Amino acid sequence: MHRIIDGVLRFQTEIHGKRQELFSELGERQKPFAVFIACSDSRVVPELLTQCDPGDIFVIRNAGNIIPSYGPASGGVSASIEYAVQGLGIPNLIVCGHSDCGAMKAILRDDKLDKMPAVGAWIKHAAAAKQIVEARFSPEEDEKRRLNALVHENVLCQLRNLATHPAVAAKLAAGQLSLHGWVYNIDSGTVDTFDAEKQEFVTLTRDSTAQATPKLIVRYSQKK
Amino acid sequence: MHRIIDGVLRFQTEIHGKRQELFSELGERQKPFAVFIACSDSRVVPELLTQCDPGDIFVIRNAGNIIPSYGPASGGVSASIEYAVQGLGIPNLIVCGHSDCGAMKAILRDDKLDKMPAVGAWIKHAAAAKQIVEARFSPEEDEKRRLNALVHENVLCQLRNLATHPAVAAKLAAGQLSLHGWVYNIDSGTVDTFDAEKQEFVTLTRDSTAQATPKLIVRYSQKK
Amino acid sequence: MHRIIDGVLRFQTEIHGKRQELFSELGERQKPFAVFIACSDSRVVPELLTQCDPGDIFVIRNAGNIIPSYGPASGGVSASIEYAVQGLGIPNLIVCGHSDCGAMKAILRDDKLDKMPAVGAWIKHAAAAKQIVEARFSPEEDEKRRLNALVHENVLCQLRNLATHPAVAAKLAAGQLSLHGWVYNIDSGTVDTFDAEKQEFVTLTRDSTAQATPKLIVRYSQKK
Amino acid sequence: MHRIIDGVLRFQTEIHGKRQELFSELGERQKPFAVFIACSDSRVVPELLTQCDPGDIFVIRNAGNIIPSYGPASGGVSASIEYAVQGLGIPNLIVCGHSDCGAMKAILRDDKLDKMPAVGAWIKHAAAAKQIVEARFSPEEDEKRRLNALVHENVLCQLRNLATHPAVAAKLAAGQLSLHGWVYNIDSGTVDTFDAEKQEFVTLTRDSTAQATPKLIVRYSQKK
Amino acid sequence: MHRIIDGVLRFQTEIHGKRQELFSELGERQKPFAVFIACSDSRVVPELLTQCDPGDIFVIRNAGNIIPSYGPASGGVSASIEYAVQGLGIPNLIVCGHSDCGAMKAILRDDKLDKMPAVGAWIKHAAAAKQIVEARFSPEEDEKRRLNALVHENVLCQLRNLATHPAVAAKLAAGQLSLHGWVYNIDSGTVDTFDAEKQEFVTLTRDSTAQATPKLIVRYSQKK
Amino acid sequence: MHRIIDGVLRFQTEIHGKRQELFSELGERQKPFAVFIACSDSRVVPELLTQCDPGDIFVIRNAGNIIPSYGPASGGVSASIEYAVQGLGIPNLIVCGHSDCGAMKAILRDDKLDKMPAVGAWIKHAAAAKQIVEARFSPEEDEKRRLNALVHENVLCQLRNLATHPAVAAKLAAGQLSLHGWVYNIDSGTVDTFDAEKQEFVTLTRDSTAQATPKLIVRYSQKK
Ligand SMILES: [Zn+2]
Ligand SMILES: [Zn+2]
Ligand SMILES: [Zn+2]
Ligand SMILES: [Zn+2]
Ligand SMILES: [Zn+2]
Ligand SMILES: [Zn+2]
Repeated sequence: MHRIIDGVLRFQTEIHGKRQELFSELGERQKPFAVFIACSDSRVVPELLTQCDPGDIFVIRNAGNIIPSYGPASGGVSASIEYAVQGLGIPNLIVCGHSDCGAMKAILRDDKLDKMPAVGAWIKHAAAAKQIVEARFSPEEDEKRRLNALVHENVLCQLRNLATHPAVAAKLAAGQLSLHGWVYNIDSGTVDTFDAEKQEFVTLTRDSTAQATPKLIVRYSQKK
Repeated sequence: MHRIIDGVLRFQTEIHGKRQELFSELGERQKPFAVFIACSDSRVVPELLTQCDPGDIFVIRNAGNIIPSYGPASGGVSASIEYAVQGLGIPNLIVCGHSDCGAMKAILRDDKLDKMPAVGAWIKHAAAAKQIVEARFSPEEDEKRRLNALVHENVLCQLRNLATHPAVAAKLAAGQLSLHGWVYNIDSGTVDTFDAEKQEFVTLTRDSTAQATPKLIVRYSQKK
Repeated sequence: MHRIIDGVLRFQTEIHGKRQELFSELGERQKPFAVFIACSDSRVVPELLTQCDPGDIFVIRNAGNIIPSYGPASGGVSASIEYAVQGLGIPNLIVCGHSDCGAMKAILRDDKLDKMPAVGAWIKHAAAAKQIVEARFSPEEDEKRRLNALVHENVLCQLRNLATHPAVAAKLAAGQLSLHGWVYNIDSGTVDTFDAEKQEFVTLTRDSTAQATPKLIVRYSQKK
Repeated sequence: MHRIIDGVLRFQTEIHGKRQELFSELGERQKPFAVFIACSDSRVVPELLTQCDPGDIFVIRNAGNIIPSYGPASGGVSASIEYAVQGLGIPNLIVCGHSDCGAMKAILRDDKLDKMPAVGAWIKHAAAAKQIVEARFSPEEDEKRRLNALVHENVLCQLRNLATHPAVAAKLAAGQLSLHGWVYNIDSGTVDTFDAEKQEFVTLTRDSTAQATPKLIVRYSQKK
Repeated sequence: MHRIIDGVLRFQTEIHGKRQELFSELGERQKPFAVFIACSDSRVVPELLTQCDPGDIFVIRNAGNIIPSYGPASGGVSASIEYAVQGLGIPNLIVCGHSDCGAMKAILRDDKLDKMPAVGAWIKHAAAAKQIVEARFSPEEDEKRRLNALVHENVLCQLRNLATHPAVAAKLAAGQLSLHGWVYNIDSGTVDTFDAEKQEFVTLTRDSTAQATPKLIVRYSQKK
Repeated sequence: MHRIIDGVLRFQTEIHGKRQELFSELGERQKPFAVFIACSDSRVVPELLTQCDPGDIFVIRNAGNIIPSYGPASGGVSASIEYAVQGLGIPNLIVCGHSDCGAMKAILRDDKLDKMPAVGAWIKHAAAAKQIVEARFSPEEDEKRRLNALVHENVLCQLRNLATHPAVAAKLAAGQLSLHGWVYNIDSGTVDTFDAEKQEFVTLTRDSTAQATPKLIVRYSQKK
């Protein structure tokens, strides 16, 4: 804990002190421009990856960057999304998976979960991704390759779950929200982003206009 | 009840007796070619509307033709879909709403629901459709028009919920399932079908190739 | 799908066109006289079996014709029943099982359910029927015989579950609802109906007055 | 607390010491002959009312002597019943309500429940009893009379809920369990017991053979 | 049942008749001074153990004297506690485990639970106690010793669960509620009580001031 | 989104490129030394506040830094904690609230929540904190002061909830986990930390040894 306490004191003198204006302003309101949903994994630091300042991004983090689909027994992810999209009106939302994800490994291997029942229940929200990967790959296939596929499919799976949230569906239908599906590669630093037009993940570049926003089955044009 | 009992006896002599071969064959197996999800409304008769024989379509019916999104507390609709799509391998699935739907009226009007708490809880699975209609129409707008919009949006909402079911997602990813979103107009007999390419409902005709199958965010092409 | 689309078009010209008056009238209201709860099985067609017209029966269908007992996490069956019995005031309710039911087979065999967790959870609502059959029959007993017993016990089990629904209990206490427990034999076309007086299933005939309405523990006569 | 601690010490010297043989025997096993389900109300003391010794009755107590119907989210009452009926094989089960019950008053009055959400949720398991009483009595009717009716109807309602528990249904079907529905009148000391034959509550007397065991819809006689 | 009916009649003549004044007074109100949470086990008789009269203690009993932690799906224990602590304002609360507890044995042995799924689910609320005992003892350790530890740890586990109930937390913060953790030894008649100061169980004696009231993390002194 | 994409590209060249060794090492494992549970609020950046590197802290973030108590319907927070504490064996855990928290304001004001039902359900996990603040402060009291109290009480409330998680309870009992309760003041940059010995929040300083680890009711010393 000493390392963390020292870090806080260093933050107070070196960072907070020097940007007093920013923090004073932030003291009474936030106006973030993106929701960032990422894994709790210590190697994924959303504000570092996006080079964002305090006040820029609203961050939801849990094991596996999982978003349960909307239902009566909604929990913390549903509440946080509702608060961000409907309460704060944030116009961009990024679901970000990452390489070497422990939650995804737990799904692939089905191991150690007797001892971790809450983890076992939680990753069922990624069952669709698991089932797709099982249909595509033989169990003999190289685990790294299957894990990489699962990490990507999981992001798509969570985007589909996300589309069932009323606040998200309404903002999408009104054209006031854009969705993005990312996978961050820890080792290389690269980011894959889902391109809904091409229906594939592409590398994120400066000119990237890729969106995961589901164009289909979200709009209904009433016939006159 | 006499009318129903008489009906059964008439069925036994006039229908079953004359098609003994069909029923004998059906006695030990079913091999339906479509799943049909419709409202419990007495005016909607799936087998009559589609002119199907016993053995042709697997039918799920509840108030509002609602499909809760997939989650840990899955119920009868989830189980029936899982059984149909994964267990029986049925390759087509139609979600069929209808005009003048009482469940949709209950959503629009928010009335009478103190006395019907189970109905009140159930129609929350169509909250996304409700929120979209509320965003599009002023409450002063003609109720018929808003109801018609809600009936259509509800079908799209249920298709999005459907996409979170692992069995459905896996079959869609494998190209082994096609989805269809219909609205049956009781008065005119016409059927609107959602065309995912055009992103609108079109009238069902002989040459109709419209599918609601969501093309986007369901496929992931792993890069080599 | 072509077969279904052709069916719809045939319905439009051959059926709907010829009974325009009925459908126009139905366009704005329904007044069904019975609730019919049946399995989703493609071989069970409630309106065909009862020779009913559109507008006659309110139909709830799911895998196994299951009715979860009433509780805080009520789902689609509870909502549909509440809507039918309390909202529409329908005075008759039939729970109809059928021979060769796949859901009942899944209960008997306990097989394939790792791959179908939603089915596994759903059929727990028939656990009482299963436990009764297990107590009555040795596992070596002929499967057909045990399946037949389970199909019948399941109807009784669902009637007991039904009796816990407040709307049903209140209508029963007021003498405004009668319950019927049926088993439809696909092969022979016969229907067994539960006779609460005799406490056994009897064959449905023209003079049948059998009711499954539980007379006991539903009425309370306050002493003066 | 002193009063309670003094009571324990008095128990140790005056009761336990004098019946050492009984308690030694009980130290390693229990073999109760009845399950007694009663309200948590301090005025209801099951062992005093029935003059039973330690080891005689298995007691379940909660606010309102409520038994949720069986379902996937079963709680403590379901578990305790399952343990008693299936695990210990106890052959008698008594559901005992009582006069002036606070939980029943809370149902009648709908008051104070904003501050007590858990109570509000819990008494929904008696919604059927409430709905029956509301159908039978005008709200202007004397409250004591309505409360008395509710207390009795609640016992019947919980017996119906009880009938959905697999262990109970199986033992009933096997004729190995008998059910009893009681109401204890604190003031007079009398006990009303439900007589399923007569379909009414009668005063408990020495010759009482009244049983609440539901005879109907629990047995299925397979036709040869 | 004859034994129980005879007991009731004996109660009416020998007990109720002789204390008519007490019962008349109790007829319209209760004012208990303690909540007593105990196992349903027939050998544990709270009013006998504490030598309490009708009207003295509010009693909650279920298999394992388990108190689920507070959450959205609260059940009968939560409701009963809320009613007792908030509704009735009872100032003392005792959680009382006991030796040779069947529910605790079921946790230790993990046996017979396939047949008793509700019991299996219920005892998960004591998973923390189980995990602590597993960490402390080798599985080869004498079962009696492990069982004894589990019985004690379970009481502490349930006290922690209790601390999450809003009504309890608020009363504790206001200094209006004291908690006690007991273990009753059936064979010897002794009672162990948790002493939060010493952090261990001590034998209950006349001068016992031991409280399980968690002193830490319940109070917040706002700085001026 | 351009700002975020530019940020990622800047990260890749300026940060990832320069610390290739760290990221290569992190590519295949994480070994964080603390779990940090914070609000999703954009102004709270755990890694900035603690000056931690990628790989240092496992971060869970949701609206209100809420930790539901352990139960059968566990969600993402429970799973993430279980994974962190049991799976990864992380020895320190910090629950960090913050000034001006929107979720806490929503609790205080009870406003806007009809439109945000998931938020309304989620903040019920802080009901104990709300109830304590309501007992301590008159509603006329200055809102800022009440909000500040609620933010602090919420951290204590979540620590109590945390104590019900089996993995946490077991590690606490084994002395292998220490808990910390923080409140970060955005404007001043200061951090309050709960001192369980003093039973109050103190300012975090270099020599701070304050722990929120509940000493009481977590240990059980078996008597020989
Ligand atoms: Zn991860
Ligand atoms: Zn409808
Ligand atoms: Zn079937
Ligand atoms: Zn009571
Ligand atoms: Zn016990
Ligand atoms: Zn916050």
